[in-house]
Amino acid sequence: MSARAVALVGGVTTPFGVRPTTWAEMAQEIGAALFRAVPALRTEDVDSLFVGAAEPERFAFQSHVAPLVAEQMGLRPRRILQRTELACASGQSAIRSAYAAIAAGLSDVAVAVGIEKMNLPSMAEANTSMVCVMDRPWDGPGGATAPPFFAMVAQRHMREYGTTEEQLAAVSEKNHRFANANPHAQFHAKSFPRAKLRGLPLVAPPLRLGDCSSMTDGAAAVVLVADDRARIYTDRPAWIRGTGQYSDFHNLAHAGELSRWPGLTAAAGEAFRSAGVGPEQIDFAELHDCFSISEIVEYEALGFCAPGEGGRFVEDGRSDLGGDVVVNPRGGLLGCGHPLGATGIAQAVEVHDQFARRVPPARQVPDPEWALVHNLSGSANVHSVMIYQAGGAA
Amino acid sequence: MSARAVALVGGVTTPFGVRPTTWAEMAQEIGAALFRAVPALRTEDVDSLFVGAAEPERFAFQSHVAPLVAEQMGLRPRRILQRTELACASGQSAIRSAYAAIAAGLSDVAVAVGIEKMNLPSMAEANTSMVCVMDRPWDGPGGATAPPFFAMVAQRHMREYGTTEEQLAAVSEKNHRFANANPHAQFHAKSFPRAKLRGLPLVAPPLRLGDCSSMTDGAAAVVLVADDRARIYTDRPAWIRGTGQYSDFHNLAHAGELSRWPGLTAAAGEAFRSAGVGPEQIDFAELHDCFSISEIVEYEALGFCAPGEGGRFVEDGRSDLGGDVVVNPRGGLLGCGHPLGATGIAQAVEVHDQFARRVPPARQVPDPEWALVHNLSGSANVHSVMIYQAGGAA
Repeated sequence: MSARAVALVGGVTTPFGVRPTTWAEMAQEIGAALFRAVPALRTEDVDSLFVGAAEPERFAFQSHVAPLVAEQMGLRPRRILQRTELACASGQSAIRSAYAAIAAGLSDVAVAVGIEKMNLPSMAEANTSMVCVMDRPWDGPGGATAPPFFAMVAQRHMREYGTTEEQLAAVSEKNHRFANANPHAQFHAKSFPRAKLRGLPLVAPPLRLGDCSSMTDGAAAVVLVADDRARIYTDRPAWIRGTGQYSDFHNLAHAGELSRWPGLTAAAGEAFRSAGVGPEQIDFAELHDCFSISEIVEYEALGFCAPGEGGRFVEDGRSDLGGDVVVNPRGGLLGCGHPLGATGIAQAVEVHDQFARRVPPARQVPDPEWALVHNLSGSANVHSVMIYQAGGAA
Repeated sequence: MSARAVALVGGVTTPFGVRPTTWAEMAQEIGAALFRAVPALRTEDVDSLFVGAAEPERFAFQSHVAPLVAEQMGLRPRRILQRTELACASGQSAIRSAYAAIAAGLSDVAVAVGIEKMNLPSMAEANTSMVCVMDRPWDGPGGATAPPFFAMVAQRHMREYGTTEEQLAAVSEKNHRFANANPHAQFHAKSFPRAKLRGLPLVAPPLRLGDCSSMTDGAAAVVLVADDRARIYTDRPAWIRGTGQYSDFHNLAHAGELSRWPGLTAAAGEAFRSAGVGPEQIDFAELHDCFSISEIVEYEALGFCAPGEGGRFVEDGRSDLGGDVVVNPRGGLLGCGHPLGATGIAQAVEVHDQFARRVPPARQVPDPEWALVHNLSGSANVHSVMIYQAGGAA
């Protein structure tokens, strides 16, 4: 039950990569880009601002970032202003807050922005900062940072289901291929054949360089409005139809089996229930492929295929154009890079642009009506899902 | 227009002060206290968790704190989980998010928790971390951290309106007196006469030690529920009737006159409009007295008195028990201390406890019906206001 329908009416990203800009400069850049991308939007229309950012306190020594972003974008929010943090899912968290505010009648026109600046002069400092996403006194210093944790997931999945390194490479190959058709992606390798991916250095066995998303600088922004305002800004709204989150555990000592993510199944169940659709209706999905193995486990937890069949699902092209559900046509975190706070917003931009037929043909999903966006955070202990429907009326 | 009414049905704080506990231990402590304070609440009732915390990444080297708090409290949120940050107003920001989620129908029973651990083995490190609340490349290193900024506000107010150091001391005396009746306050001076306050060391002229709130460890939590659930948990609900925020500027170069805060007038205007009341209806107010001068400027911006009359307002006892509006009966930030993320939640706990007649007689407001809570953040560049009504039906 929601008070009123909420539409995402436009959005934009900056180029993702190693950017010679400061955190604040990226806020200014995404602001200018947003007002170019949504020409009908005026600064005075925007009553609320939600900023998704994971660790500006460490990466940029800047807290209280919401008013900084407002100032850099030329906004003076008069209803709600806040920053949301949920590590790697901070961007989607900002969108969910904007959605709730509009549905509740507390905002009419809201901007959700995600920004992260992760490449620092000292990458040792940047990498150390990433440790504090995990349970700090226990898991982080014990070595269970992201690559080793997801390597354990991969090892377990291979042992239980016979998933292969070739299948992991198939995820990376597909997402890098899509990223080649995304001018804002961090990586534009001419080709990324599986054989080449299998020859890259090991990061944490069995995960190689091509199986891991990167430390990325980037920003993204979307505009969300109440139902009766949608047509002011676009004739191609993306309606938010469902949302779900689930928090399973924090300390890894409390994690269940690594090779299945029941928390994602729970979050998706809530989102599917509220949207009134199931996995078979989803035309494309922006999934959180922080590591190649993540996408495989996610196929299964979301019900796109049965448990244990995720490896074959990608190998058989069922998550590619022409398959059952197109996964990560934007290029994924693997191809686009993963600026923590910006990722969830950039995925929503892709939903809007796919619905509006605005993406290059090499990644355009034909006639999409339903899209699902997923983010995980930490050691896959929290899962966040949103479901969008294309066009039509509220 | 809100979809459905939202009630605050109970809450609690830990003792505030210099606490020999870790950040995570405070999460566990506030969780245990909350379930004792709201006996009808069961862990499985709570579908959503909102965590207000300003800088755990710096003070505790811990990000992704929302699932950590969930685990420490024994919760598994299945609807919404997020941390909100708005520096000194992070706690109220968490409550506003919970309010929006429930009003929108996305949550039925939500917990909002605020935690901050500011006293570190190295207070130099803690103080440095406070710099990143300000505009970091410009205002912070230039020396415009909180005490100097609010000292400038005081100097300007004194020059324009003839406000005196005695009037500043009157704010501190009142709030410390109330804090003496609050067992969880950081400070319990037997008496804090104005003459003694005026003899304390200067921090930033004219502000003395007694004019400044402190670095504090503490946590607070409240339960918010949809209208039809309120009676399950309490017969004394505090209904959220209005909310407003305003973001004026970030970099101090863009600040207007220091001695008036039009951003607070704007935020309060929105809150009064949505609640359908004005300043004359407010029985008591929890205002953000991070410094004594702040409370004086706030009286004026909120319309409790005319511009320039804030000093006389407190001196004449009009913000004390028996006056026009009781301000900071909890003891304020001056008396209770100011654990950034916990402050806004602790103020809401006071609203509930005042409405329920649960506070010691020395600070009980007689027959309160309307309460206003205010937080500012940064250099008073963002103002956040909520208005509550006591008891009765939705």
